[in-house]
Amino acid sequence: MAPQVIFQPSGRRGRVEEGITLLEAARQLGVDIESVCGSARVCGKCKVKIEEGFFEKFGIESRMENLSPLLEEERDFLEGKELANNYRLACCAEVHGDVLVFVPEESRGAKQVVLEHGKERVFKLNPAVRKYYVEVEKATLEDHRGDFERIRDALVTKYGLPPDLGIDYLVLRELPYILRNQGNFSRRTLGGKVFAGSPVATDQSTWNVTVTVWNNKEIILVEPGLAENCVGLAIDVGTTTVAAYLCDLRSGQVLAVDSMMNPQVRYGEDVLSRITYAMMNEDGLQRMHEAIIEGINTLAQRMTEKIGMVPEDILEVTLVFNTAMQHIALGIEPSFLGRSPFTAGVKSSLNIKARDLGIKVCPTANIHTLPVEAGFVGPDNVGVLIAEEPYKEQEKIRMCIDIGTNGEIDIGNAKRMMCTSCATGPALEGAQIKFGMRAAPGAIEKIKIDPQTLEISYKVIGQEKWYPEIKKTEAKGICGSGIIDIVAELFKAGIIDKNGRFNMKLNSPRVRRGEDGKPEYVLAWAEETSIGKDITFTQGDVRAVQLAKAALYVGARYLMEKLGVDRVDSITLAGAFGSYINRESAMVIGMIPDCDLENVVAVGNAAGDGAKLALLDVDKREEAAWIAREIEFVETAIEPDFQERFAAAMAFPHAKDKFPHIQHILDQIPKR
Amino acid sequence: MAPQVIFQPSGRRGRVEEGITLLEAARQLGVDIESVCGSARVCGKCKVKIEEGFFEKFGIESRMENLSPLLEEERDFLEGKELANNYRLACCAEVHGDVLVFVPEESRGAKQVVLEHGKERVFKLNPAVRKYYVEVEKATLEDHRGDFERIRDALVTKYGLPPDLGIDYLVLRELPYILRNQGNFSRRTLGGKVFAGSPVATDQSTWNVTVTVWNNKEIILVEPGLAENCVGLAIDVGTTTVAAYLCDLRSGQVLAVDSMMNPQVRYGEDVLSRITYAMMNEDGLQRMHEAIIEGINTLAQRMTEKIGMVPEDILEVTLVFNTAMQHIALGIEPSFLGRSPFTAGVKSSLNIKARDLGIKVCPTANIHTLPVEAGFVGPDNVGVLIAEEPYKEQEKIRMCIDIGTNGEIDIGNAKRMMCTSCATGPALEGAQIKFGMRAAPGAIEKIKIDPQTLEISYKVIGQEKWYPEIKKTEAKGICGSGIIDIVAELFKAGIIDKNGRFNMKLNSPRVRRGEDGKPEYVLAWAEETSIGKDITFTQGDVRAVQLAKAALYVGARYLMEKLGVDRVDSITLAGAFGSYINRESAMVIGMIPDCDLENVVAVGNAAGDGAKLALLDVDKREEAAWIAREIEFVETAIEPDFQERFAAAMAFPHAKDKFPHIQHILDQIPKR
Repeated sequence: MAPQVIFQPSGRRGRVEEGITLLEAARQLGVDIESVCGSARVCGKCKVKIEEGFFEKFGIESRMENLSPLLEEERDFLEGKELANNYRLACCAEVHGDVLVFVPEESRGAKQVVLEHGKERVFKLNPAVRKYYVEVEKATLEDHRGDFERIRDALVTKYGLPPDLGIDYLVLRELPYILRNQGNFSRRTLGGKVFAGSPVATDQSTWNVTVTVWNNKEIILVEPGLAENCVGLAIDVGTTTVAAYLCDLRSGQVLAVDSMMNPQVRYGEDVLSRITYAMMNEDGLQRMHEAIIEGINTLAQRMTEKIGMVPEDILEVTLVFNTAMQHIALGIEPSFLGRSPFTAGVKSSLNIKARDLGIKVCPTANIHTLPVEAGFVGPDNVGVLIAEEPYKEQEKIRMCIDIGTNGEIDIGNAKRMMCTSCATGPALEGAQIKFGMRAAPGAIEKIKIDPQTLEISYKVIGQEKWYPEIKKTEAKGICGSGIIDIVAELFKAGIIDKNGRFNMKLNSPRVRRGEDGKPEYVLAWAEETSIGKDITFTQGDVRAVQLAKAALYVGARYLMEKLGVDRVDSITLAGAFGSYINRESAMVIGMIPDCDLENVVAVGNAAGDGAKLALLDVDKREEAAWIAREIEFVETAIEPDFQERFAAAMAFPHAKDKFPHIQHILDQIPKR
Repeated sequence: MAPQVIFQPSGRRGRVEEGITLLEAARQLGVDIESVCGSARVCGKCKVKIEEGFFEKFGIESRMENLSPLLEEERDFLEGKELANNYRLACCAEVHGDVLVFVPEESRGAKQVVLEHGKERVFKLNPAVRKYYVEVEKATLEDHRGDFERIRDALVTKYGLPPDLGIDYLVLRELPYILRNQGNFSRRTLGGKVFAGSPVATDQSTWNVTVTVWNNKEIILVEPGLAENCVGLAIDVGTTTVAAYLCDLRSGQVLAVDSMMNPQVRYGEDVLSRITYAMMNEDGLQRMHEAIIEGINTLAQRMTEKIGMVPEDILEVTLVFNTAMQHIALGIEPSFLGRSPFTAGVKSSLNIKARDLGIKVCPTANIHTLPVEAGFVGPDNVGVLIAEEPYKEQEKIRMCIDIGTNGEIDIGNAKRMMCTSCATGPALEGAQIKFGMRAAPGAIEKIKIDPQTLEISYKVIGQEKWYPEIKKTEAKGICGSGIIDIVAELFKAGIIDKNGRFNMKLNSPRVRRGEDGKPEYVLAWAEETSIGKDITFTQGDVRAVQLAKAALYVGARYLMEKLGVDRVDSITLAGAFGSYINRESAMVIGMIPDCDLENVVAVGNAAGDGAKLALLDVDKREEAAWIAREIEFVETAIEPDFQERFAAAMAFPHAKDKFPHIQHILDQIPKR
């Protein structure tokens, strides 16, 4: 009788032909075991543990002796402790009798991984870009297949890739050379990439290469030897801030995080002014397109350098952005997005070759963009959705607010989802604010004001302790979370009234008139800072925040009405602020509707997380296509009572609406 | 009862819903009627003839009155004679009763077409690139599909294109602009293309565009209005000569023919010297690659200009070449083709974006290359095979010889096909010959020598009459067909002996010693020519032809042996000579095996015809893949007796082999 093999923890079992390896048995039984080298015995990734004993439940007696003896090659990869605990390489151990095999977490293919940075998110590691190690027979006079066909056949036979697998033309150009020059890694190819592969000592009758395949469709890189590096870049191109995450496609780990101001800011601070710039200048679109591509290239260069790689090592890029930023970044005519009926040039997700876009990563890499929902509700909101998955909420009503220069709001649950966008302006990202800056070292990110003394305590990014515990805080400015805090604290301390006007009768050196004669509050005295001048928050800054928060609030209330609800059960606050925003502050200034504060969660850059998830799990791209199609878009700016509502929402927290969940805080505001 | 419609000549018939148009009825019954505009009534291509009367065979009474009345729009497209003969536009005529419809040849989709230039070849017109005219509803606030999705949906609904139809990123960039600026055609887009579309006056609620789709897969161009121009370029990149054919993809017509010397000739005259150049020079491959791309760009420019178009109007290019020329033209490392085991980097057919190759046609166009068979037997021989189709010969043994700097030979029939290649050298294309030139005006293409007087008569390309009928022939040199003629004529006149040596004892001013003291024959005296000097054929020229013809003959004989035959039933002589070569001359010099001269056919550039056929009919690409896989490759240069056989084949016609079919000619050669 054929031997029985059982794999745990999946429990998959079956009888297999005697003499096949455990790796082959796993494949036949549908168990996904990691194997970078595809049984060439050079990667050591397919470690499994043999459980010994009689397993009554399965009726089998599992024994080490039921496998072929331990090979010398296996000892190179297994530590002493592993050897003592019956570990084997699945590619080496042949089945000669019943065995029960435990596949440890790290050896499983399609691993469950927790997304790093930002909110904890568990996902399945299943990237579009995968590397396959193959050893192919060298060409002979008898076997005159072409080099490409030889590699393709090996991938089909060994890894079950489809027989119509293609190859990027640029890879083809170098292929004959790479196959036959495995010792020489200095030659720069594919437009500058230095091959990272390391030589593998094997039988001289084979060529050994690592092949990178995109989406089971196309070979995008062939490297000599065993090359394990496999990285991708997820980028959230915000109107004001560009946030980037360099990810390891093998482990799901985030290797580097970086951000920059969107270089297009010089052409306009918000979405509409950029579109106008494109319409008014013959080469406006091209200039802005080149600016952001150059920005992305700078990030790719900076981030790979940080971990000792080169940009050409990046094998896929996922991009999210609002629809206008998408059009401009891709160089697609954006003019018609700016006028009714606000139509996008394309709504589907796209895969564009890096070289066609001018993005200087591996030139054969694909740039994947998530789909558009409608109007300005773009791929970034799809990113928020696939990260937050509000559509998996069964009964409760969930609202997701993505705060940026263009704000997007989603509401609903598994039954129905709706979305809208609002022109928030860049204030909450620190632009249009006198000392505003993005979340980077030196930015004031958290603030408390004592309602009695009107003195401040604040925390700066990069410093462990708060002012006044440290005096020299090296503050440079204030970032988004600090901006929301300062407005809430000024209001709670009675320094500004519910209309946002400064009370100039207060006796505090911090409340003063600036050089322009307008009221301001001093956050930090010159000597505390690294810029040598007082950092202040001005009457104008308060106004900018009022405009922003009113836009968000009005959008949120419209959505609630369209969905037919008068309250939401939970609110998710997302945004590329670096630091999480304070939910209490957000509600005190009336940026979000009333809700139990316990159920208001700030999650950081969820759009960026969506970009990461789409990079690390192709199934998330399917999910993105589905939700972009299913969600209902609500156009709010054309509602007849928009202006009236907007005016009422300018007050703190609102001219009419009540906020029972923070009423106790509002009640404590000193009347002066 | 639903009305019956019968379409002739196909005989397809069926009952259809009353009130649908004849075009729709044709679609439902699987009859392919040409319709460029897709029922928009603006192209007038779907003319059909209604046959009136009772048709007993079908049991129907067909009457004009069974159709809706003639529309005003139809009169714009139908001539008086057509109106009188019951012609209608199928898109206008609605079915209200039984009709028998004759679809004239010019209205049929997938037409049978005769290939122009070269041998008459009938094929099905079925190109990869097709244009579709669509009128789509403009975007509204309610229908916020993206522009691309709107166009795609229309193509899916109206023309049955697949719903996963993609779009080239470059087209996407301009799409919003093109849809909304139909009156403005001056803007240059897609890297320089001037849109050729003409405005169509239709209902203002729609956007009207012509969409070019490649292989039912990808949108590669969107033009405003109705744009009918649809051209492609087929190119045979020979080692010495590049021949190009500009074809109309709508009619199958050849619009322009042109050729040039392969600009790579300065890096080496034959395949091996080019490969060596690539190996010995760091940038050798790149230089040669750029040279041929530049050459192709020159041809595209010259040929489109000739017919009032621009190169960007070219929407697809098919290329054939031998394997080495393929590698170099595509920039693929060719070094390993030049040494055992002579392995190609790729054998499959390829589709490469024009912009990736630097070919300056429409940048979104695909460059399609036919597949490689083996070694140097490349896409050009596949081109010969799909043009000549020897694999359709049921019983008889057919041999196809493609004469070029690299020669390829095929043998067999439907049961079995074999092929080989031979290093012919460029002599037969006029290179390495003192006064050799390619087949162009001024080239001596046909020659006769009087065995008595040793005087010559010859014909020059571009002149109607032969010398000496005209004295001032304006000859510049001698091309391939002339070269084969002159050697055969020198031998038949006894001026050279069977070993190729000149007989210097003859009393003729034409047989003399040149300035270098070596024997030569004067083809044309200085005063006849346009170059002002005597055109001669030298002892060295004879030797070069001997080497070339011996290589071809030895290859042919090996193939016959491998196939197990001692004679062939027919021989096809192909080659990019411009003029057909003389079959008798070819056999007299022993370039081809003995065969009934009646069954030796010179067909011109069959490889180029193959490139044309692949351009005009996608099914030919399938056929190419099949034969490239099926044909057996024979490596002849490694046979142990190769040198010995080669030496014997140097003689005229051969040192040992007999040629019964021309024995009567050989018998007449004067002994002196």
